[in-house]
Amino acid sequence: MKLASLRHGRDGRLVVVDRNLEICVPVPDIAATLQVALDDWHHVAPRLADIYRQMNEGRADNARPFDPKACAAPLPRAYQWADGSAYVTHVELVRKARGAEMPQSFWTDPLMYQGGSDAFIGATDPILAADEAWGIDFEGEVAVITGDVPMGATDTERHIKLLMLVNDVSLRNLIPGELAKGFGFFQSKPATAFSPVAVTPDELSGAWHDGKVHLPLTVTLNGETFGTPDAGDDMTFAFPQLIAHAAKTRFLSAGSIIGSGTISNRDAARGSACIAEKRMRETIADGAPKTPFLRFGDSVRIEMLDPQGHSIFGAIDQIVARYEGG
Amino acid sequence: MKLASLRHGRDGRLVVVDRNLEICVPVPDIAATLQVALDDWHHVAPRLADIYRQMNEGRADNARPFDPKACAAPLPRAYQWADGSAYVTHVELVRKARGAEMPQSFWTDPLMYQGGSDAFIGATDPILAADEAWGIDFEGEVAVITGDVPMGATDTERHIKLLMLVNDVSLRNLIPGELAKGFGFFQSKPATAFSPVAVTPDELSGAWHDGKVHLPLTVTLNGETFGTPDAGDDMTFAFPQLIAHAAKTRFLSAGSIIGSGTISNRDAARGSACIAEKRMRETIADGAPKTPFLRFGDSVRIEMLDPQGHSIFGAIDQIVARYEGG
Repeated sequence: MKLASLRHGRDGRLVVVDRNLEICVPVPDIAATLQVALDDWHHVAPRLADIYRQMNEGRADNARPFDPKACAAPLPRAYQWADGSAYVTHVELVRKARGAEMPQSFWTDPLMYQGGSDAFIGATDPILAADEAWGIDFEGEVAVITGDVPMGATDTERHIKLLMLVNDVSLRNLIPGELAKGFGFFQSKPATAFSPVAVTPDELSGAWHDGKVHLPLTVTLNGETFGTPDAGDDMTFAFPQLIAHAAKTRFLSAGSIIGSGTISNRDAARGSACIAEKRMRETIADGAPKTPFLRFGDSVRIEMLDPQGHSIFGAIDQIVARYEGG
Repeated sequence: MKLASLRHGRDGRLVVVDRNLEICVPVPDIAATLQVALDDWHHVAPRLADIYRQMNEGRADNARPFDPKACAAPLPRAYQWADGSAYVTHVELVRKARGAEMPQSFWTDPLMYQGGSDAFIGATDPILAADEAWGIDFEGEVAVITGDVPMGATDTERHIKLLMLVNDVSLRNLIPGELAKGFGFFQSKPATAFSPVAVTPDELSGAWHDGKVHLPLTVTLNGETFGTPDAGDDMTFAFPQLIAHAAKTRFLSAGSIIGSGTISNRDAARGSACIAEKRMRETIADGAPKTPFLRFGDSVRIEMLDPQGHSIFGAIDQIVARYEGG
């Protein structure tokens, strides 16, 4: 099943989207918003799945064209956004580029940061920043949406309800100062963008196993391929482990979003899912980075295709723009 | 105006509470939940204020006794919880106790961490932890709830809609390991508790100025006074500055909660609003801490009285209990 939230008010208007991302059906009588659906998933999901089946069989009432540009994030605002850093290969590169050792414990104890979840942006919304000098970067990731997860839960895969793609926008030049203060990211992580649709794990069929998505993520910068790392390779911590980490000392509420962190493969030929990683590889190879961070007007596209070449989640397709307000 | 959320479903049931915290009136025809009210505050607040005025004049329909034990957190789940560390005195003590210098920039650039907001607990809910060895501690704070704040806003005091007290429960012995990883707090910050009621700034009358609450916070541990630091003293960053910091690179949505951090005064005679600070003072004085962290069965009470001795927000009154689930 595929779900999206059309722009409407603060929480969007829930629609079911067909497998081919061509049509959608509003479902106000079942659930007005995706959060409402997640709050009562056990009862609501089967009813949404019925609509989805009818759509794919070409017999849905009330279907209309699906336009990703009309989409907010599947959850335009959420109660929890916790982003892991499950591709330890990436963390190792970060350290290596600055000549530091990575602690061995990073292979067994996940890195995770608490993200801001009150104002997500849609897949085609601009990346707004007041200053290019902040070092604007994308990070291509996969994320899951959970149901209610008990504190201390270890059997967590069953709590995964939906998957999405993420652009975890980062302001690289604000990060060193913030991390030096010791309290983690804040200003360096502006609004996060998500794919137009969220999908149930069964939509990935054989590509979803071991709590990982075994497919490449296609990242394009200004129309040129930037990276195609496989989300299933080199993922040290699978989603169930990330969820268990997040729930160790607290309950997670339905609609919690848990991210994988930047997808990163050991094989440099696959490219990267963020500019920072490419710059690290350049630093390690040549002593200095040469790829610049994003400039106003640059475009970033993040997508995942199934083995037949069909887009699973629709594309995150954003332009970087100067923010003039305040 | 004073507002509370009685336990009901995921978001509670909004009630208006009278000034003396004796009676309350459900307002389902105005706003079912506090978040619904905040989403349309401009229209909803005057209607709630009418009810409040009627209650204080003894002419409210439908009034019933107000029981703080029936309260969830004013926002049982929220979209944003950002906690500052505005009492730099406290941060200085942390550093001094471990023999480290505090960077001078800490006096001008606020520390702030992104907190988890999906599962808050009510004022009289137990503090649940699986293990005493985690170093369970309370942190008495004040927090504000904002309306929508534009990215880059600097004139931010007008976005403050409500104030609350906070118990920012912390697991002290998990903090060093987490901060060493560089991504800030996560497991070391379990569910946060809030006062039974949230109040509009005018309820503080003369005690609310310069974006600070100029009243002492009374913190009691197992029935004995632990500290009475004044929230208006030694607060290096006022709430408007904390909001501006949080909104520097992103929009904040209505219902965002911004915390002050542990209230802390330079004058040690006022005591502390957390055990960790008392232990630091002990370490600086005697070379080692002697006050233990919380044990199962311990009780913590956090309250703020007006100059006439009346409780403004009701009391946070919690017992520490062993969590057996998972």
